[in-house]
Amino acid sequence: MHLYRRVQVAAWSALVCLWASAAVAQALPSWNESPAKQAILKFVAEVTTPGSPHLVPVEQRVAVFDNDGTLWAEQPLYIQIVFMLEQVRAAAPSHPEWKDNPAFKALIGHDMKALAALGMKPVLQLLGTANSGMTTVDYDESIRTWLATAKDPRFKVPYTQLVYVPMQELLAYLRSNGFKTFIVSGGSIEFMRPWAEQAYGIPPEQVIGTITDVAFSLQDGQPVLTRQPNIDFLNDGPGKPVGIYRAIGRQPIFAFGNSDGDLQMLQWTQSGKGARFMGLVHHTDAQREWSYDRESKIGTLDKALDAASVNGWTVVDMKNDWHKVFAFQ
Amino acid sequence: MHLYRRVQVAAWSALVCLWASAAVAQALPSWNESPAKQAILKFVAEVTTPGSPHLVPVEQRVAVFDNDGTLWAEQPLYIQIVFMLEQVRAAAPSHPEWKDNPAFKALIGHDMKALAALGMKPVLQLLGTANSGMTTVDYDESIRTWLATAKDPRFKVPYTQLVYVPMQELLAYLRSNGFKTFIVSGGSIEFMRPWAEQAYGIPPEQVIGTITDVAFSLQDGQPVLTRQPNIDFLNDGPGKPVGIYRAIGRQPIFAFGNSDGDLQMLQWTQSGKGARFMGLVHHTDAQREWSYDRESKIGTLDKALDAASVNGWTVVDMKNDWHKVFAFQ
Repeated sequence: MHLYRRVQVAAWSALVCLWASAAVAQALPSWNESPAKQAILKFVAEVTTPGSPHLVPVEQRVAVFDNDGTLWAEQPLYIQIVFMLEQVRAAAPSHPEWKDNPAFKALIGHDMKALAALGMKPVLQLLGTANSGMTTVDYDESIRTWLATAKDPRFKVPYTQLVYVPMQELLAYLRSNGFKTFIVSGGSIEFMRPWAEQAYGIPPEQVIGTITDVAFSLQDGQPVLTRQPNIDFLNDGPGKPVGIYRAIGRQPIFAFGNSDGDLQMLQWTQSGKGARFMGLVHHTDAQREWSYDRESKIGTLDKALDAASVNGWTVVDMKNDWHKVFAFQ
Repeated sequence: MHLYRRVQVAAWSALVCLWASAAVAQALPSWNESPAKQAILKFVAEVTTPGSPHLVPVEQRVAVFDNDGTLWAEQPLYIQIVFMLEQVRAAAPSHPEWKDNPAFKALIGHDMKALAALGMKPVLQLLGTANSGMTTVDYDESIRTWLATAKDPRFKVPYTQLVYVPMQELLAYLRSNGFKTFIVSGGSIEFMRPWAEQAYGIPPEQVIGTITDVAFSLQDGQPVLTRQPNIDFLNDGPGKPVGIYRAIGRQPIFAFGNSDGDLQMLQWTQSGKGARFMGLVHHTDAQREWSYDRESKIGTLDKALDAASVNGWTVVDMKNDWHKVFAFQ
């Protein structure tokens, strides 16, 4: 009887192992069997397996992801800037004072180099002025309309199809292991929320981004929120840990980025106690996507790449680690 | 056979009805059978019953609650101000310039009337200065320590026991019906997050409140967030719909407040399309809690009470509608 039970237990354990390996083999199907994939699976097993010394309670399983260049493409120019270009161009006749504005000149002149060097803030300020007084409902509508019609010139698909399949799988895999997934992006909350739920399974309330002021008022007795010209909070670089603190109030245990704008978010994630995962997407695939890092003005990956090497962060080599990049390919 | 099946179906339907009424009867046990309770149950049934013309998809079931005076007591002074008083008093020797500051004089002199008249902003600014440079970890610790030891002078219990049992039940009832519950308070995020999960079942990332600036830096190579002297966002009055827009990005379908500081949040909730529920807690119970409304400096309920009457919002009469107020009574 004793022996029989021991055999039973052994058989059951073997079955569990088999089942578990099968489940793991099925996880992240668009990822090649690489050190990056192994690091992700190992971390998730460590923090979720009952009895593990690194087990993390479900409510503390907070995972944060940059958006541009981490979850979807950002070359040759952040997609939000392409949208803004149209908005700003439409508003230009009412703003003759813009003619000497460097961000305006770069936008209108399609001077990608100057735009990238200026960074997001002056462009966001320009858009803030362009859209000032617009209701949040109208602004949301203008974004949805643009996303439904505009197409990427290189890939000839709507921009929302430029999301990375392996990262969609990673988001779903984390959630199936009890993680709550957040976007923490330098882009505007308004530009991500209309499609993040469908593309990533991330609801609007888990999208953290740059915030332009809006003001409440009654118009003909109806409450409206109207856009104001100033940026209230720039959620980039050192602003990312601050944005996380404001909106989540817990330190993430898992963070993924792709550029120096994510450096502080990864440092902040690493500084917590217990097991942590920090990852970077390295764009190495000029054929299927783009290839860039230290020298690129958009999505510069320089200091963060050095930090990854020093701190043992996981660096995804897009060309070799991803079996598939976009769903349409 | 046909008849038999019809009898079967009828019996099953009757069973479902019986079960449903039993479930409803069990819901909100600390609420008396009043119009307020009926309005809540009716609304929840309308937006959650499959086939209902007012059915709302789960992801849109957003419910927002003010905190002070709606979920826990706020008299004779907001509990956060009691805490701040000690923090400011401790910092006073380093700030001789405060001696002419009206908020400081009111705090130190226990001048409740002057404090209430000044509102939260100057007091928060004083605290901002007092705590400037403190790390967020140390500040969190100071709040937890205070909450674990301080007691309410009237009820002789820790402040966190001053939460209303009927509202705890309401929060749980909404969540069991697929709602996501948020706090939207004029108080600071830091003061609510350490205990909101245990008291209300609301995790830190669903606590929206007033935001004091924090800054990211490396101290001896370790990332820290340190408190800055300025308030970045005051989440009160017209700030509440703005805070909801920033942090949630969806219009709530259910909102509960208790004072004029919640008026715009309730207006904003009402202005959405489809079924909506707006509620106010009316403090009418001097014996078990407090009795106050239009004339009170803390939690003034004047314009919002008029708006409730005009718009048909649900007003909870604490004395008559709540069978129980605090768990310790």
